[in-house]
Amino acid sequence: MDSKIRKYKQEYDYSYTLGMAPTMELIKMKREQIEAIYVHPKFKAREAENDIYRICAENNLPCETNEKIFNRIATKENTYVLGVFRKFSSGVSNSAPHIVLVNPSDSGNLGTIIRTGVGFNFRNIVIIKPSADIYDPKVVRASMGAIFYSNFEYFNSFEEYMDSNKDYEFYSFMLNGSLNLKDIKRPDNKFALVFGNEATGLPDKFLQYGKSVCISHTNDIDSFNLAIAFGIAANAFTDL
Amino acid sequence: MDSKIRKYKQEYDYSYTLGMAPTMELIKMKREQIEAIYVHPKFKAREAENDIYRICAENNLPCETNEKIFNRIATKENTYVLGVFRKFSSGVSNSAPHIVLVNPSDSGNLGTIIRTGVGFNFRNIVIIKPSADIYDPKVVRASMGAIFYSNFEYFNSFEEYMDSNKDYEFYSFMLNGSLNLKDIKRPDNKFALVFGNEATGLPDKFLQYGKSVCISHTNDIDSFNLAIAFGIAANAFTDL
Repeated sequence: MDSKIRKYKQEYDYSYTLGMAPTMELIKMKREQIEAIYVHPKFKAREAENDIYRICAENNLPCETNEKIFNRIATKENTYVLGVFRKFSSGVSNSAPHIVLVNPSDSGNLGTIIRTGVGFNFRNIVIIKPSADIYDPKVVRASMGAIFYSNFEYFNSFEEYMDSNKDYEFYSFMLNGSLNLKDIKRPDNKFALVFGNEATGLPDKFLQYGKSVCISHTNDIDSFNLAIAFGIAANAFTDL
Repeated sequence: MDSKIRKYKQEYDYSYTLGMAPTMELIKMKREQIEAIYVHPKFKAREAENDIYRICAENNLPCETNEKIFNRIATKENTYVLGVFRKFSSGVSNSAPHIVLVNPSDSGNLGTIIRTGVGFNFRNIVIIKPSADIYDPKVVRASMGAIFYSNFEYFNSFEEYMDSNKDYEFYSFMLNGSLNLKDIKRPDNKFALVFGNEATGLPDKFLQYGKSVCISHTNDIDSFNLAIAFGIAANAFTDL
């Protein structure tokens, strides 16, 4: 079966985890989506909990020792385990808080945001297109497998998303936001935290959509990195 | 002169900025360290503030149009301006807060931490070796030029740093820290925020060095990304 698996492209109906840690999260959370687990001949389980052959047997998952697939699709050295999975769609909860990412373009940032979100119990991610591809193995890797703990849903525009979520209060993070994050507490009603593109931020029309929020910084930087701003905001709004 | 400039290695006494934004910060903050500014023949200044030829003339800086140097050392396409600078050493303030990074290994994280630190007015960075090289062009780029607004100093061990900064209170960020970040306020006296390596964190001996602090997260992630944890901590301790 491995001959079918090629280096990832967005149009494929599968993606893959690279490395032991995200593969373990895949097995734990999305076992039914797995096509196969591949193991590099050089792989040695240092601890019993890393014995991928036993884990696959116990979970009734196809597991194949195969060097070629690693040469073909692994982007970093020292990747000895990978898991191929069929893409899945989820849709976001209509009661839990939402994270809304408007046109995120950097795969690493997107993965880090997913990981941070799961850490702060924000597991419902709305993505406004155009955007980075959430199934890109770079996103999966940067998320450290947290992607398998998240729901996500794509929309073509923020307005389309907003129309179908009118009972949510929107907090748009903007350099010229009118409220300071320090003065805000987690609201009791449904809410969404909204972030713009890495380079351009949110356009000014978002000043009219609900509340706009800024994070104070010195004048010696233009802005915080998107994933950093998200982490600071998520920490302020978490229920942990 | 350009024939001397090679793709960066740690042992060289120079490094360089890649791109307009960090080069502008270099000119603004560390003009006296600049060897030369190079401009790609394809560069076109869209606004007067980006007219690098005028800026160099006004600042009495050597400026050369040169394609070869970009082919040789630029790692990304669309890099049209670069600034070569002699490395500088600074030493950290003995009154301002310190950021202490113990064995940071990822260049991108290190640059993002420097940028975030300047944003929150933490401009004194102590690095415990072994570590990533703060002059690596990847660090300079990820810092977006904020590196030119920071002081930094290397030490061979945390104990050596601690011995020469006995009047500082240390806040070590650890998964098993005894205090929760939410319960801590910025102290009035001198303090240092201490962070471990991306993969291994701080060893348990740090539980005895001053105060240890954790950032609550769900059990579905192992930890936050180092730069994210730093951003959350810096936001909590900033005087902004």
